[in-house]
Amino acid sequence: MDCQYDVIVIGSGPGGYVAGIRAAQLGLKTAVVEKAELGGVCLNWGCIPTKALIKSAQVYNYISQASDYGIKIEGSTRLDFEGMVKRSREVAATMSNGIQYLFRKNKVEHIKGFGKINPGHEVEVISEDGTLKNYNARHIILATGARSRELPNLRQDGKFIIGYREALTLPIQPQSMVIIGSGAIGSEFAFFYNSIGTKVTLVEFMPNVVPLEDEEVSKQLERNFKKAGIKVMTESTVEQVEVKDHHCVVTINTKKGEETLDTDIVLSAVGIAPNIEGIGIEETGIRTEKGKIVVDEFYRTNVEGYYAIGDIIPTPALAHVASHEGIICVEKIAGHEPTPLNYGNIPACTYTQPEVASLGITEKVAREAGYEIKTGKFPYSASGKATAAGHRDGFVKVIIEAKYGKILGVHMIGDNVTEVIAEAVVARKLESTGREIIDSVHPHPTMSEAFMEAMAAAYGEVIHI
Amino acid sequence: MDCQYDVIVIGSGPGGYVAGIRAAQLGLKTAVVEKAELGGVCLNWGCIPTKALIKSAQVYNYISQASDYGIKIEGSTRLDFEGMVKRSREVAATMSNGIQYLFRKNKVEHIKGFGKINPGHEVEVISEDGTLKNYNARHIILATGARSRELPNLRQDGKFIIGYREALTLPIQPQSMVIIGSGAIGSEFAFFYNSIGTKVTLVEFMPNVVPLEDEEVSKQLERNFKKAGIKVMTESTVEQVEVKDHHCVVTINTKKGEETLDTDIVLSAVGIAPNIEGIGIEETGIRTEKGKIVVDEFYRTNVEGYYAIGDIIPTPALAHVASHEGIICVEKIAGHEPTPLNYGNIPACTYTQPEVASLGITEKVAREAGYEIKTGKFPYSASGKATAAGHRDGFVKVIIEAKYGKILGVHMIGDNVTEVIAEAVVARKLESTGREIIDSVHPHPTMSEAFMEAMAAAYGEVIHI
Repeated sequence: MDCQYDVIVIGSGPGGYVAGIRAAQLGLKTAVVEKAELGGVCLNWGCIPTKALIKSAQVYNYISQASDYGIKIEGSTRLDFEGMVKRSREVAATMSNGIQYLFRKNKVEHIKGFGKINPGHEVEVISEDGTLKNYNARHIILATGARSRELPNLRQDGKFIIGYREALTLPIQPQSMVIIGSGAIGSEFAFFYNSIGTKVTLVEFMPNVVPLEDEEVSKQLERNFKKAGIKVMTESTVEQVEVKDHHCVVTINTKKGEETLDTDIVLSAVGIAPNIEGIGIEETGIRTEKGKIVVDEFYRTNVEGYYAIGDIIPTPALAHVASHEGIICVEKIAGHEPTPLNYGNIPACTYTQPEVASLGITEKVAREAGYEIKTGKFPYSASGKATAAGHRDGFVKVIIEAKYGKILGVHMIGDNVTEVIAEAVVARKLESTGREIIDSVHPHPTMSEAFMEAMAAAYGEVIHI
Repeated sequence: MDCQYDVIVIGSGPGGYVAGIRAAQLGLKTAVVEKAELGGVCLNWGCIPTKALIKSAQVYNYISQASDYGIKIEGSTRLDFEGMVKRSREVAATMSNGIQYLFRKNKVEHIKGFGKINPGHEVEVISEDGTLKNYNARHIILATGARSRELPNLRQDGKFIIGYREALTLPIQPQSMVIIGSGAIGSEFAFFYNSIGTKVTLVEFMPNVVPLEDEEVSKQLERNFKKAGIKVMTESTVEQVEVKDHHCVVTINTKKGEETLDTDIVLSAVGIAPNIEGIGIEETGIRTEKGKIVVDEFYRTNVEGYYAIGDIIPTPALAHVASHEGIICVEKIAGHEPTPLNYGNIPACTYTQPEVASLGITEKVAREAGYEIKTGKFPYSASGKATAAGHRDGFVKVIIEAKYGKILGVHMIGDNVTEVIAEAVVARKLESTGREIIDSVHPHPTMSEAFMEAMAAAYGEVIHI
C-alpha cells in the first residue's frame, strides 16, 4: 500500500507521544495528530501539574512544621496561590516543550488539529481554523484518551462545579471545597487544597477512601486525612448541587440521612470518560464494548490497520500503562516480537501525604479467590529512616501465596512509597518469591527496608517489630 | 557442651543486635553484651542521627527556596542549631529504645559492660563499676564494630579536631569547618553544615569527591557542592592542624602548593578503624589479617565456636551488610542452610542533596576488567517527577554487559535515589537483564522511571531524551 506515513497516531498523551517516538525510532515514518498541547492530559492537566502543586503543599507543610525540625520562623508565611498555580503551569509547559524537542529529534511529525479516522487507512484532520486535510497511513493508532466524567446530576459548569482541569487553574484559592470521589484524583486534590488551608469535604460513595486499595491502606489514609483536617464522608452520595449567589449548596445522602453543605466549589472526581465520540470509529466499523474499543494483546482492533491504546480500551487508565501499550503496539507493527503486557503487574500510585502505592491483589480479593496466603506488615514507626524524616505514619503490607512464597499483592502507604513500589514491580516481573526479597540487601537506612521487613514478617522472621 | 547460653554476641550495632534477635527467634538462648547504648554507632552515632540532621537541613533548604514553590515567607527564619541536634538525639533515642523493646519481646538478654573473649567459649564482661563477670556460650559472635580512624598528624582532641561523634553534638554551630575526607560521612556532614550556613571546606586526597563512586557521579556531586557554596579541594591533603586561640590553622597541600586556612573546627572523616583491640582475640588465637578478623562465608573464625561479623571483618563496613552477616551467621549456627552473601550486590548510599546511590562496578572498573559493555544514562532534567519536585539535578547511569544485558553497575545521583536503588538490588539478585527492567511497568510519574529509561538508553530505545 502506498501511504504518506507508516504510522499516524491520534492523540499525544503518554500513550500517543510514546508510541510516536518509538515508531520513529524503529524506522517508521510517523505523525502524531494533536489539537491541543503535546503531552495530553497527563502531562498538561494530570500527573505532572498535580505533582507540582502537591510539592508546593509539601513544602508548605514543612514550613508549618519547621519547629519540629529545629527551625524557628519569626514573622508570617504567606501562601501565594497564584504563584503555586503559575509554577505548576510552568512545570507542565517545560515537559510539553520537551515533547516538541523529542518529536523533532526523532523526526516525528506533529499534525495540528482534531483527528478523525475514515475507512481506507485515512485520517482527516480539522485544524483550528476549520480547514480539513486528509492523510493516510498503513497503521493508524487511536490514542485519544479520556476526560473528566460528568454525572447527570452533577453537570460541570467550569466555575462552581468543576473537573480536574479547572481545579488546576482556579483564579483564586477557594475557602471551601467539596470533592466528590476519593480515587487518586479526588484524594490528591483533597490533600493539596486542605494543606494550603481550604476547608475540604471529601465525599465517597464506597465504604472507604481510595476504594480500590487494600482496606487497611484506605483506613490509614482516612485517619491521616482526618488528622489533617479533611472532613471525610464515606458511603455518601451527592444528590444535588445548587449554585446560588456565587456559592454551592450541596445535598449529600449519608448513612445517617441527608446533609446540606455550603461550599465555594464542588470538584467532581468521579472517574473519567473515554474520548471515542466523533473520531470515526462507527464509520470505520471498529468494534466497541461498554464504551471502549475492543483490541487484542497487540492493540489491534477488528479492522486491519487500526489500533487503539490507553484510556479508550478496557485496560487500567494509567499513564504508564498507555506508554507501554504504545511501545508494544508499534514494536509489533515494526515486526518485532514484544512480550504482551501483564496487566496483573501494574502499579498504582496516589500522591497524597502519606503516599499510597500498590501492586497485585488486595488481601480481600486474595481470600475471596481462595488463595492460601500469608501476610506481613511493617509499620513506618519502626523504620529508622521514616523516624529521622519525621514521617512515621504508614506501613508496607505484603500478601504472599503460602506454599511457594509467590508475591500476590503489595500495598504501601507512607513517605516515598511511590518510589519504593517499583522494586515490587521488578520483583514480580522476575517471578521473585518473598524469600528472595528478604535475602536482598536493602540499603540502611531507607524506607525500602520496610518492604524487606514486611516480607520477613510474612515468613515469621521479621527483625524490627 | 553445657553452657549458659547458646549464643553470646559482643556488640549491639546493626550486626550484633540483629544477630541477637534472629538467634533468639531461632530458639537459641541468646545474650548481647553492650557497654553503651543499644544499637551501636549506626543507630546512636551514625546512620540514624545523621539522617535526622540532614532532614532538618532539607527542610531548611525548602524554606530558603520557598518562593520557588509559590510560598512567601515574611519575617525571618532562625535556625535553632541546638533544636536540630536535640531532635537528632531524640530520634536516635527512640530507635535505641526500640531495640530494648525488641530484646525484651524476643527474650534476648542484654549484658551491660565491655565484653572480652577468652578461650574455652568464655566471655568476660567488665561492667561500668569495674566488676568482672564470666559467661559462657556454645557460640560467641564478635560484632564490636569500628570507630573514627585517627591519622598520626591529625589526633582528635574532641573539641577542635573532631570525629563524627562530636560532629553530631557540637554545643554551638561553628562558623567554619574543614572536613577531611569526602566519603559518605564527610560528604553528608559537608552537606548538613553548609546547608545551615557554616562555611565548609571539603578536602579530599583523591581526584574526586565520593571517590569510590562512578566518576560521572562524583563530578555531578562536586558541581552541586560548589553551587551550594562548599569549597571543594581535591587531590589535597591536610599536612597539619595547629590549634590556637580557640580556632584551627590548617595547612593543606594542594595541587598548586601549600595553602593555609583558618577554621573553627576540623572534622576528620578519613575512614574508620575496627575495634579489635583488647577484646581477647590474641589470647583466644583468632587469626587476623591487615587488622581485620579472618572468617569464612558463614563468619566462622579459625577457632571453633567463635564468629565475627560487621566492621571487624574485611567486608564493606556498612550497617546493612553487618545485619545480613549477623542473620546468616546465626541461621547457620541454628542448622539452617542460609545462602552466603553476594558481596557483589551491596548498595552504598550517601545522603547528600542530591543523594548518591550505587551498586556493582563503575564504568572505569568494568572497562579495566575487560568487559564488553553498554552504558545508558538518563538525566533527572528529563524526568517529569523530578521537575515537578524542583530537583532536576542528577541522573541514573547503568552499565550492562553488551551481549546478554547482565547488569554490571548502577550509579545514581539525584532526589530519592537512596530509595530507588533497592529496585536494582532486587533486579540483580534475581539475575535480571536490562531488558526485563525496560519491560517492567514503572509507575508514572516517579523518579524510578529514570532507572528504566537509563536501561532503555543502554539498549538504544530511550523515549524521553
